Amino acid sequence: MTCNHEIETAKLIESAEIIAIGTEILMGQITNTNASFLAKELAEIGIPSYYQTVVGDNPFRLEQVINCALQRSDAVIMTGGLGPTEDDISMKTASKALGIDLCFDEESGERIRKFFSGIKKPMLESNLKQAMLPQGCIVINNNNGTAPGAIIEKIITKSGKNKTKRIILLPGPPAEMKPMYIESVKDYLDKYSPMQIKSTFIKLFGIGESAAEDMLKDIIKSQRNPTIAPYCSTGECMFRVSYSSKKISSGIGVTQDENYVNETENVVNLIKHRLDEYIYEIGNRSMAEVVVDLLKSRDISVSFAESCTAGLLTSMVADIPGASAILNGSIVCYSNQSKNDLLGVSQKTLEKYGAVSENTAEEMAKGCYEKFKSNYAVSVTGIAGPDGGTPEKVVGTVFISIFNGNKNKTVKLNLRGDRQKIRYLSALNALNLLRKEILNG
Amino acid sequence: MTCNHEIETAKLIESAEIIAIGTEILMGQITNTNASFLAKELAEIGIPSYYQTVVGDNPFRLEQVINCALQRSDAVIMTGGLGPTEDDISMKTASKALGIDLCFDEESGERIRKFFSGIKKPMLESNLKQAMLPQGCIVINNNNGTAPGAIIEKIITKSGKNKTKRIILLPGPPAEMKPMYIESVKDYLDKYSPMQIKSTFIKLFGIGESAAEDMLKDIIKSQRNPTIAPYCSTGECMFRVSYSSKKISSGIGVTQDENYVNETENVVNLIKHRLDEYIYEIGNRSMAEVVVDLLKSRDISVSFAESCTAGLLTSMVADIPGASAILNGSIVCYSNQSKNDLLGVSQKTLEKYGAVSENTAEEMAKGCYEKFKSNYAVSVTGIAGPDGGTPEKVVGTVFISIFNGNKNKTVKLNLRGDRQKIRYLSALNALNLLRKEILNG
Repeated sequence: MTCNHEIETAKLIESAEIIAIGTEILMGQITNTNASFLAKELAEIGIPSYYQTVVGDNPFRLEQVINCALQRSDAVIMTGGLGPTEDDISMKTASKALGIDLCFDEESGERIRKFFSGIKKPMLESNLKQAMLPQGCIVINNNNGTAPGAIIEKIITKSGKNKTKRIILLPGPPAEMKPMYIESVKDYLDKYSPMQIKSTFIKLFGIGESAAEDMLKDIIKSQRNPTIAPYCSTGECMFRVSYSSKKISSGIGVTQDENYVNETENVVNLIKHRLDEYIYEIGNRSMAEVVVDLLKSRDISVSFAESCTAGLLTSMVADIPGASAILNGSIVCYSNQSKNDLLGVSQKTLEKYGAVSENTAEEMAKGCYEKFKSNYAVSVTGIAGPDGGTPEKVVGTVFISIFNGNKNKTVKLNLRGDRQKIRYLSALNALNLLRKEILNG
Repeated sequence: MTCNHEIETAKLIESAEIIAIGTEILMGQITNTNASFLAKELAEIGIPSYYQTVVGDNPFRLEQVINCALQRSDAVIMTGGLGPTEDDISMKTASKALGIDLCFDEESGERIRKFFSGIKKPMLESNLKQAMLPQGCIVINNNNGTAPGAIIEKIITKSGKNKTKRIILLPGPPAEMKPMYIESVKDYLDKYSPMQIKSTFIKLFGIGESAAEDMLKDIIKSQRNPTIAPYCSTGECMFRVSYSSKKISSGIGVTQDENYVNETENVVNLIKHRLDEYIYEIGNRSMAEVVVDLLKSRDISVSFAESCTAGLLTSMVADIPGASAILNGSIVCYSNQSKNDLLGVSQKTLEKYGAVSENTAEEMAKGCYEKFKSNYAVSVTGIAGPDGGTPEKVVGTVFISIFNGNKNKTVKLNLRGDRQKIRYLSALNALNLLRKEILNG
């Protein structure tokens, strides 16, 4: 079996770029998360993207930017500027750049009318402006707002060669843009992508980016296909192993899928061999999802006793749909009084060792176990700062203890960062420790 | 007294644009938060910015982008591409665009050597490449990494007129870029800004963007100076009232500051008059900060009983430094068992009215009040979804109750959104309700 997506070269999208239209982005009022969403999507389907631009709703500047983008890329994805007001000029300006007229799209007009009767609000005549779409375009329905999107295609002849150029117009609000992209644009672009890319994600905890890269230096250096890209965020590190193949293939040899499975498996195994102790997920799940799934699969319940994290740990677990199956509840014991009253941490322990100590963490976990009768109880106590540190216990000192009815497993952490970061890293560490305890216990 | 920042027009920065260099941004691995940070800073000091660009570390494409930016803006701020490897070409390419040579900066070289001896790691020769800086530039020290930044100035003569063009190079990691900007670039840019801008923020809760804008329609329409810009995020809405004045003034009339105070006060009062019941802050504080400050100023303690929010509400309060002064602790009662065991919600109530009901919310708040002996106890119970809804109690049904030792104040909310959004909006609503109870009670 050979690759069956053979599309003539003139129609392929060999590069795409993203233009966001919005004064709010230029003023720094909102961050251009649309661009990072679309960029990730393009990378995943194998369309190279070399530029991103942000511009306001000024007709002259927008037209310049669109023309420049059409010169250097086969497809231009625009977000924003599809609203009903006079300021919203994306549809008009994009059409002008490709020399296409706007005309009223009856079906879109009908959808806009229905949208307003659905939310029982009067429609202004200006709202129908949003149904003015480029002649002959592919209309993209908007299920979360009034502005339809559009895909405009135009064949350009340059030095005697034909090439299809495209502008794809999407609304600015992410809650409208993202579902429209997923429902109506992704497959379209994928069809014309020159490549086919499949990725596997390896997620690590407890090792920094440079240390992890250092341990894979030779593998990363010799990478060709699949490629290995590191990608780190607060407290976590990830490698993306991506296998790519050209869609226009000679038809010789094994299928893409077989190659992908074999080549990727080799690299993943190499990485696993070196970094196994840090890997918590080969796939797409977050640490909290991994822990919730693990607890669910083993029918294990959990409760938390939180001091410095103060609800954040519980909240990260509760964010995962279905968490109620494994989470009974938690106690946030911020004051010493509440550590004593609600979790039975002894006054003696609090006085002798302090609220941030191994002993207090252990008694918190035991007390939490008694209160909720969950299979595991996890406690966190520490100094998140900015105040409250001492020379012996500096800001960032955190104790985590896990009690399973028999014994405590307790660790001390020395974390760095501001209050938010220390609290977040404490919660992540607690989840990872719980995961390891369950796997080892 | 008149404005004393008189700078000749040729040196003014009448517009600036931002270029981020990084394959990770083009691949969607990271979001370009540097651009939103810098954009906001530029807006605050009154330098207009009409473009933002992202480009990779390809010399040809980067040079093209820089040249294009220099054509249309007086200052170009570049982030990223200052690392020690061959791939890092920002310094070289920017210098080339302005026709300036790189040369080794002894002082920066010394700082890099000291940085490595400070962290007790060996320095590679390649690290010294970061001390190769444009001849005659203003060197910007980096206190959080090895790469120095640079400000390059060049006077360009066009149609017989002189104009100073500038490229400002900053490192990519936000933890290095932001402090460098604040410490060494902000004042420099402010000095050459054509405007002086002062802003006041009015923050609203409980009203949507379009409804709020609608209520201020005539004021917004007639705005000139100060201007009024809306700016909304999940569950919240804000108006920025900005007063701007030209730095090159005739020296006649009252001072900028007097004008700012008078004109801004007028507009703020107009907005207050119309939207008073929704305003929780005139200033920069978040809802959680406002509530923590209010509780502190009145010496009021609080505890939370959380079901659907499951620690999020407590965590939002604990995120504010100094929250320990007013937060005793909380109970997350996810299971019915824990609602009964820990908060004393009666089995009868749970059976008759259900866990998501006015009665359960009230008993949760009362139980929480008893447990922690705080001045106020706030409970939240609801259906965050995606599962768990019924025709009578759909996903998004949430009850919040506040007990002050005498009586309950309870509200029912019908929220929309996914699990995360419903939980977040529930927590925000609980904070706002607590704020109102304290102010009214």
